Amino acid sequence: MPRFKLTIEYDGTDLAGWQRQENGPSVQAALETAVEALTGERSQVSGAGRTDAGVHALGQVAHVDLARGWPGWKLRDALNAHLRDVPIVVLEASLAKADFDARRSATMRDYLYRIANRRAPPALDRGRAWHVRRNLDAKAMDAAAKVLLGRHDFSTFRDSQCQAKTPIRTLSRFDVIREGDEIRCKVAALSFLHRQVRSMVGTLAEVGAGKWNEQDLKSALEAKDRSRCGPVAPACGLYLARVDYPAQEK
Amino acid sequence: MPRFKLTIEYDGTDLAGWQRQENGPSVQAALETAVEALTGERSQVSGAGRTDAGVHALGQVAHVDLARGWPGWKLRDALNAHLRDVPIVVLEASLAKADFDARRSATMRDYLYRIANRRAPPALDRGRAWHVRRNLDAKAMDAAAKVLLGRHDFSTFRDSQCQAKTPIRTLSRFDVIREGDEIRCKVAALSFLHRQVRSMVGTLAEVGAGKWNEQDLKSALEAKDRSRCGPVAPACGLYLARVDYPAQEK
Repeated sequence: MPRFKLTIEYDGTDLAGWQRQENGPSVQAALETAVEALTGERSQVSGAGRTDAGVHALGQVAHVDLARGWPGWKLRDALNAHLRDVPIVVLEASLAKADFDARRSATMRDYLYRIANRRAPPALDRGRAWHVRRNLDAKAMDAAAKVLLGRHDFSTFRDSQCQAKTPIRTLSRFDVIREGDEIRCKVAALSFLHRQVRSMVGTLAEVGAGKWNEQDLKSALEAKDRSRCGPVAPACGLYLARVDYPAQEK
Repeated sequence: MPRFKLTIEYDGTDLAGWQRQENGPSVQAALETAVEALTGERSQVSGAGRTDAGVHALGQVAHVDLARGWPGWKLRDALNAHLRDVPIVVLEASLAKADFDARRSATMRDYLYRIANRRAPPALDRGRAWHVRRNLDAKAMDAAAKVLLGRHDFSTFRDSQCQAKTPIRTLSRFDVIREGDEIRCKVAALSFLHRQVRSMVGTLAEVGAGKWNEQDLKSALEAKDRSRCGPVAPACGLYLARVDYPAQEK
């Protein structure tokens, strides 16, 4: 059976997250329903990252096995026709190698976290950014973010429900940039713990507000203690921006 | 009575446009309701531009007269508290001169028109950009847009319902820029005819698609004939981005 790689964009506002579940519409279920409507096959759609309810994606990646071959553009357009009523679209579809695995083959995951840092709540970005009224020092946040780069035990920034075998992760990039009244946090790693990005961004916001300094962040990281984490930033500001794979698997 | 200048952002998707009317929720009515809830006064809120249903604003400007003085930040925050259930926010409020008029005092209006130029429909930008599947040549659109710069009779690009006394307008800026799979059209003038921006952008898209050339656009402009206009671009891609005033009136 040919395996396909799908690149997916979604507005997570009214979705219950990536994973198929009982309590609401999931991205995975919507895609599997579209695949079944198109091909008559019940195939599992496996994603690179299990985004939580309310989290968005600019470039989630998934794989799915289908009975017959399809030109990529045709599969993409046909799936999108079946996704018309949900805020989910397939950006690209292409034939992948038989051993391509959206989750296991990934070499890097990029997340974007958007903060609307102004007095007035967002009107156009309602549900698409975290509204923080008090002025945040993005430069201080950016400097402190560098403390988290590299290989660490991220127990402090790990949700209590996290099922990963180890709390060790290697952070490749963490940049915090102000663009007008928006603060954009760009984080990349091979993989993340559950709610790690939101835990780190929420804690960095304490630095931006002047309540924490860089040393406080360092101590919290080194404590490897969930109770030392700052507030967890809300889901609405988080975007799975991109997933990378080795060149030969693209 | 002190006069206040309000700068306003809104998501026009589910709104019936700026102007108070019978057939749906308008921005003007929502603001007047918020003012009345706050002050008990029935005051008219007068806007710089009457945006159509579905059109958004990043920086609409309006004025309103209130019985008593308010610190600007307090008026803004209090109005926003009353606007919580609608996709409209006051970005700034400030005391204005008694003769400040949001519409008549304006010296420049900036509009942004966003085109999602890709095969897949927008998920995150649904209702916030015009989806055009065929590839558009943004450079050709930008070059052709320059034909429209300066003082012209814009009858070709004027809605049949337009009530302006004259079809003569002076276009100060018209730039078309590609950013990834988005095309951003930035237009500025002292004032515009009804649906002028959408008429011009829709026609330029014909140039981008290779159906029209620069000379066709020039001929259409010079014909001063509404029937020579290309298709009118939909409301969802249009944003009233900014309104300028003489320095002393700010």
